[in-house]
Amino acid sequence: AFWIIWLSQLCYNWEKHILTFSFISLCCLSALIFLLDLSYFVARSKTCGELRLAHVGQEVTLCGWIQYKRHEQFVVLRDFQGLTQILIPQVEAASHLRKLFSDAPVESVVRVTGIVIPRPPGQANPRMQTGDIEVKAETAEVLNYCKKLPFEIKDFTKKTEALRMQYRYLDLRSIQMQYNLRLRSQVVMRMREYLCNCYDFVDVETPTLFKKTPGGAKEFVVPSREAGKFYSLPQSPQQFKQLLMVGGLDRYFQVARCYRDEGSKPDRQPEFTQIDIEMSFVDQDGILALIEGMLQYSWPKEKGLIKIPFPSITYDEALSTYGTDKPDTRFGMKIVDVSHILRNVDVGFLQNSLREPHGTVKAICIPQGAVSEAICGNSPLGKFLNEEQKSELIRTVEANMEDVVLLAAGQHKKVCSALGKLRLKSAELLEAKGLLFRDPSAFHFLWVVEFPLFLPKEENPVELEAAHHPFTAPHPLDEHLLYSDPSQVRGQHYDLVLNGNEIGGGSIRIHNAKQQRFILETVLKEDTELLFHLLEALESGAPPHGGIALGLDRLICLLVGGSSIRDVIAFPKSFKGRDLMSNAPDYVDPQELEPYHVQVTWPLTEAKARTN
Amino acid sequence: AFWIIWLSQLCYNWEKHILTFSFISLCCLSALIFLLDLSYFVARSKTCGELRLAHVGQEVTLCGWIQYKRHEQFVVLRDFQGLTQILIPQVEAASHLRKLFSDAPVESVVRVTGIVIPRPPGQANPRMQTGDIEVKAETAEVLNYCKKLPFEIKDFTKKTEALRMQYRYLDLRSIQMQYNLRLRSQVVMRMREYLCNCYDFVDVETPTLFKKTPGGAKEFVVPSREAGKFYSLPQSPQQFKQLLMVGGLDRYFQVARCYRDEGSKPDRQPEFTQIDIEMSFVDQDGILALIEGMLQYSWPKEKGLIKIPFPSITYDEALSTYGTDKPDTRFGMKIVDVSHILRNVDVGFLQNSLREPHGTVKAICIPQGAVSEAICGNSPLGKFLNEEQKSELIRTVEANMEDVVLLAAGQHKKVCSALGKLRLKSAELLEAKGLLFRDPSAFHFLWVVEFPLFLPKEENPVELEAAHHPFTAPHPLDEHLLYSDPSQVRGQHYDLVLNGNEIGGGSIRIHNAKQQRFILETVLKEDTELLFHLLEALESGAPPHGGIALGLDRLICLLVGGSSIRDVIAFPKSFKGRDLMSNAPDYVDPQELEPYHVQVTWPLTEAKARTN
Repeated sequence: AFWIIWLSQLCYNWEKHILTFSFISLCCLSALIFLLDLSYFVARSKTCGELRLAHVGQEVTLCGWIQYKRHEQFVVLRDFQGLTQILIPQVEAASHLRKLFSDAPVESVVRVTGIVIPRPPGQANPRMQTGDIEVKAETAEVLNYCKKLPFEIKDFTKKTEALRMQYRYLDLRSIQMQYNLRLRSQVVMRMREYLCNCYDFVDVETPTLFKKTPGGAKEFVVPSREAGKFYSLPQSPQQFKQLLMVGGLDRYFQVARCYRDEGSKPDRQPEFTQIDIEMSFVDQDGILALIEGMLQYSWPKEKGLIKIPFPSITYDEALSTYGTDKPDTRFGMKIVDVSHILRNVDVGFLQNSLREPHGTVKAICIPQGAVSEAICGNSPLGKFLNEEQKSELIRTVEANMEDVVLLAAGQHKKVCSALGKLRLKSAELLEAKGLLFRDPSAFHFLWVVEFPLFLPKEENPVELEAAHHPFTAPHPLDEHLLYSDPSQVRGQHYDLVLNGNEIGGGSIRIHNAKQQRFILETVLKEDTELLFHLLEALESGAPPHGGIALGLDRLICLLVGGSSIRDVIAFPKSFKGRDLMSNAPDYVDPQELEPYHVQVTWPLTEAKARTN
Repeated sequence: AFWIIWLSQLCYNWEKHILTFSFISLCCLSALIFLLDLSYFVARSKTCGELRLAHVGQEVTLCGWIQYKRHEQFVVLRDFQGLTQILIPQVEAASHLRKLFSDAPVESVVRVTGIVIPRPPGQANPRMQTGDIEVKAETAEVLNYCKKLPFEIKDFTKKTEALRMQYRYLDLRSIQMQYNLRLRSQVVMRMREYLCNCYDFVDVETPTLFKKTPGGAKEFVVPSREAGKFYSLPQSPQQFKQLLMVGGLDRYFQVARCYRDEGSKPDRQPEFTQIDIEMSFVDQDGILALIEGMLQYSWPKEKGLIKIPFPSITYDEALSTYGTDKPDTRFGMKIVDVSHILRNVDVGFLQNSLREPHGTVKAICIPQGAVSEAICGNSPLGKFLNEEQKSELIRTVEANMEDVVLLAAGQHKKVCSALGKLRLKSAELLEAKGLLFRDPSAFHFLWVVEFPLFLPKEENPVELEAAHHPFTAPHPLDEHLLYSDPSQVRGQHYDLVLNGNEIGGGSIRIHNAKQQRFILETVLKEDTELLFHLLEALESGAPPHGGIALGLDRLICLLVGGSSIRDVIAFPKSFKGRDLMSNAPDYVDPQELEPYHVQVTWPLTEAKARTN
């Protein structure tokens, strides 16, 4: 199955680029099949997934795990490619084979050599890829016996996640994990082909033992052998990618390991992977087109074609229409302004809300909200509306019979945000009731652009902080506002959203040292000491440049429909950051800390417990 | 130049696999050139390396750095692809262009649009790829002015390495660094194609926040938010790759970041990269063939073809013949046993040496050692040899006139090791004198096999330690010795040596839990507590498996003829482990250490200095 996918992608690649060479026809492609050989270098001659009627009569050697055994006559062998039924001859001469398989518990590893034969009439299994044949065993060897397992492999998904993670090496044998990890590998390989082979990007590895970035509160520290000095595990290669552009690399990418210490958060990992990209002499449109092309090129064919270019929405529009900067555009239920209809309705809280600065009344219409009984509600507001107002409201929100209309009044951002959350919650409730709102196989990409460059600090709203990071260039039309009203400046930042999840973000960077220094020192009041090398680099002939980073774990998780990014990571950490298999992190002998000049400061309770 | 290489490799790949499809001829391949577009998505229409006479008459836009300026009339523009001469028209209407270029210092970044014209007769520059043409500027813009630089880019290699590292973003602009990083990226991409696309290896990312391995004294620790508990940055994904095999992944690879804290060692980096590979159901021959194929496939054409299979030598033979387990086989000067000739020579130290256990007398012959005056020496030993002994010695070591013969007597290992070092030192001395011994463009690969599985511990030679790591399987012929005389057991370990440098190593692993436990507990006396999960995994249906890891930094360094691995790493650390550009590692606010429950233990002198 894997090479079929791979071939069709190859085919597609060629179609796109060499239209004139249609004579490279299917007959040629079928020859290419032999490129991908799964049994070179190893003890098997075939995998457990590839035998068909065409192989009947061949002698083959298979290696795999005993999936199950039946009547001392049949053994189903499993490897990463599939299942093959082994027939144990019932003649006296094969009694040693019967004993061998009878002694080997399920999940033992065996090598079997035998002849491919067709299954007897009526016994073919159409649900099995190899269901037309079986292999009549001639010789066999148990390569490794399996002791009792903590659970059956086939029943896997019923186990708790903690058990799956403790015995991850068993969990990996499940069809779903095999599929997820292989798909991830293939998608990344396709991205590399697109970047490296089609567009000459340079894969550059950047250090992970670096220095704390300003405000990098979520960075792990690594003690060095110099007393008091620490490396820091960076949250992204941001500084390095920019310095590579200053160094004239022109086009950089890296599948980069990044680190973020967020304590205990579900669906976050202390280490994660991003597809990290930077280009020189590029503008926003260039980056967006590059990424659209890359995702189209690397998208698995079995998941359907994705259409490019992706739609785009401004930050302001996203907030007004969906109440969030990462809208799920797989369904409508958009937020509609109904202030003009309710402006003259004599209800205190409406009037008060509309009098506020940025006061507004907005609505969403939940189709079939009443019929599904998922969303209840009976508002007295109806009493205060006249017929004309009622029908205008219904017309404006495009409500039908049995729909439910939700209204909210207040300050613009809060109203939108609240209705945005209700929109998602309503969709979930309706889906729980069986109304299919969002096609689980649909992939709706969306660019969100024109973010504000700065946001008021939460702890002190008079001061500003970078909405994303301090290296984002201002929107060319807003540059003059930097010096007069920085809070109004839009940045050249873009987020990529898939089905309501942010899967990437990037920006055109500041390449002018003076502008960068002004923003750091005057707008953000940051200490530029820590970024001295970057400012110096910008003064040394930095080209205009920009880039993006895609969160690979989340992207693949959405692609395979996983329930958590842990489903697409071979050895994930628990939500507390623990490796349940090896029990990391773990205590370390104080003596081993000596060369690093650190010692543990035990919390009081624990210190007491340890001295008792 | 880049796509030419790439194409020829593509061509090669096809030739190898699809002999029958020769009709995919050169005309088809030339169409493929358009696959690799260097000017998509960006502000230029061409790069500075690609304009030829065929482009004359075209309007082009170039972006790049001002390499130099001449007579206010010529500007040479540089980008990652090459150089192009810009002609500034000397007419009045172009005076703004003259001013623009005159105001822009060297290394400023500019965008120029103009018409490609042929250079006047006699002014073509054959040493320049684009030397037949120049671009007559129509419009230009300075994208970023460059301030004074700490050194001129073109003079670069004369600067100290410390300066190069402090201004790494400028160093990266040098032709050599651009070449090195691009070649590295291309070689790795080819390896990925071979592994992923040809042989269905799965690229799996394994954690770098892990747990200390037994005896992992060189592992960096990372404090976690749980008091007293630390992650460890692993030296290799060894355990994970084995667990992936237990998990049925079948074929794993990863370009893996690894960490080793070796303090201050020249030509070592605290973080480094290895091509990490593991396969199930494989034997030693399978792994060797896989790696030979991969290196042949990924080897840059400009560096010549490499012949496979690589020669192979046993550890014992390597030691006897070259005095080292990583012989440089680019030259002879082999160690020859001359014990039989000198056995009857009446010299005390010879007699004493030969009486020792493993006592021996060995020699190397240094061709032209006398003539070159590099190796002096006049031994009184000649006096004690009769003519027959002399001529037999000369015949045995194949000495010619003007050669120098070096003899050593003593215990076998020590004698070989000493002569091995002298062999290398002599080659260096002769080369310093201008005698070319080793072709710097030759690549001599060599497998070293049949290493001892265990070695006596240095601090206590009665105890044994793993020669490589405790997971290496014993040689099948020696398995019975495990229980009687483990020091005599050879392991299924293999090292790959290139021109006298170890560039990789691997082994067939133990898949039998009982054998693994016996080696850990009884032979090595290790605490198996820390490896409980691995032992449990081996009991749960672990397939036979083996693998290898290649040191990517060293391999690429040898490939480009670099003087240190720092020449093939974008942002290397100094030999003290420092990043001289950003000044990492650095002091950290004690407050930032609080969540990690660690504090610095200042050495006395420093603590005093800080309290004063």
